[in-house]
Amino acid sequence: MSGMWTVKVVGLGVVALSLSVELLGWLLHRLRPKRARTEVLFFPSEMACLEHIFAPSSPQSCCCPLPHGVETSFSRLVRCILSASSSLDVCVFAFSNMDLCQAVLTLRSRGVTIRVLCDKDYSAIHGSQIGVLRRAGICARCDVGSVYMHHKFAVVDNRLLITGSLNWTMTAVQSNKENVIITEDPDLVRPFLKEFQSLWLHSDPAQYLHLSDPKPADKPTTPSTDKPC
Amino acid sequence: MSGMWTVKVVGLGVVALSLSVELLGWLLHRLRPKRARTEVLFFPSEMACLEHIFAPSSPQSCCCPLPHGVETSFSRLVRCILSASSSLDVCVFAFSNMDLCQAVLTLRSRGVTIRVLCDKDYSAIHGSQIGVLRRAGICARCDVGSVYMHHKFAVVDNRLLITGSLNWTMTAVQSNKENVIITEDPDLVRPFLKEFQSLWLHSDPAQYLHLSDPKPADKPTTPSTDKPC
Repeated sequence: MSGMWTVKVVGLGVVALSLSVELLGWLLHRLRPKRARTEVLFFPSEMACLEHIFAPSSPQSCCCPLPHGVETSFSRLVRCILSASSSLDVCVFAFSNMDLCQAVLTLRSRGVTIRVLCDKDYSAIHGSQIGVLRRAGICARCDVGSVYMHHKFAVVDNRLLITGSLNWTMTAVQSNKENVIITEDPDLVRPFLKEFQSLWLHSDPAQYLHLSDPKPADKPTTPSTDKPC
Repeated sequence: MSGMWTVKVVGLGVVALSLSVELLGWLLHRLRPKRARTEVLFFPSEMACLEHIFAPSSPQSCCCPLPHGVETSFSRLVRCILSASSSLDVCVFAFSNMDLCQAVLTLRSRGVTIRVLCDKDYSAIHGSQIGVLRRAGICARCDVGSVYMHHKFAVVDNRLLITGSLNWTMTAVQSNKENVIITEDPDLVRPFLKEFQSLWLHSDPAQYLHLSDPKPADKPTTPSTDKPC
């Protein structure tokens, strides 16, 4: 009887041990925080055709002289922007890069909610894409309360931050030494979302347009859709 | 005898259980990766006296009209730079802020190894602190291979990254909308360290000085220590 009892106790011990090991593994897997997706891009970027990114269903129909199907820092950046499925908030000093403008327009055609905030001085210079965005019905505002609105960041779907030294211009992408951080780390995304929301509210034209109503002769001749919202 | 045996087995089980719980706690503590220190600063910063940061042992001896003992975005940035104990690598487009220059000079006096890399055009303009740093014996190089060396980052002790949209100028700190990320996340620090090392080697004046030796009449009249290294 004592022998049978010992066997039972030992058996129970073995079962308990194996269950404990399994529980330990499960706990470690659950409790270990997942590393946030993080990527760093450096520029200048090699130039390559982006058609396979903008139109992945019709590959190799482009005849441009650029290399095709090549992954570069810039193509990674465009992919990240195009990954937006619900919202894109852009807050950049300078926005004159036509490929990045095309990416934003593509998102607009997919029904993504887009807000663009830029520096008041840069938005008016030759080559700025702010007018193009506004004419496409995209909500674009200009910061009016600082010497420069010098940020260069965007937030995709309220969860993916794109930030760094890179303005959204052709020179920055092709010629300058620049960096871009792409991260889902909530400790980084959260403050930038808050900053965007604050700047967006402070740049509401309803707050300042009545203070500087242009005379009729000064009114812009661009279509009525080319206006802040 | 059987009763005593049961007490012993139950006792051993209790001891084993308590040891297992302790082991589990220890394992979870050891295996859970620590969250990297991360901080985001936004500018413009309120202005406040920095004397308590530069000279913490002699508080309130300053009579300047700025608020004293106040923590701001800028004071946080200066504190991070001054936390360097072995090395500081600075890679910024524009460096004209005298407080940041003082921070670098303070580190130099403490024996910290300092390397500064900046844009070739900006380093020569009025107000640039690059000459001040060189005259203090700090190794400062200029990028020569791009339209703009537009980075704005620094790495403290090869472990703490400071990066963002902020140039090291007074306007950026006091007037612009800017951001700075401070992080120890190795996934971010590592690529920036690699980028710095690569740019530093490419900006070695030994590689290009012989290609553009100035004529004797063009040679600068600044002291001989005001030169790249």
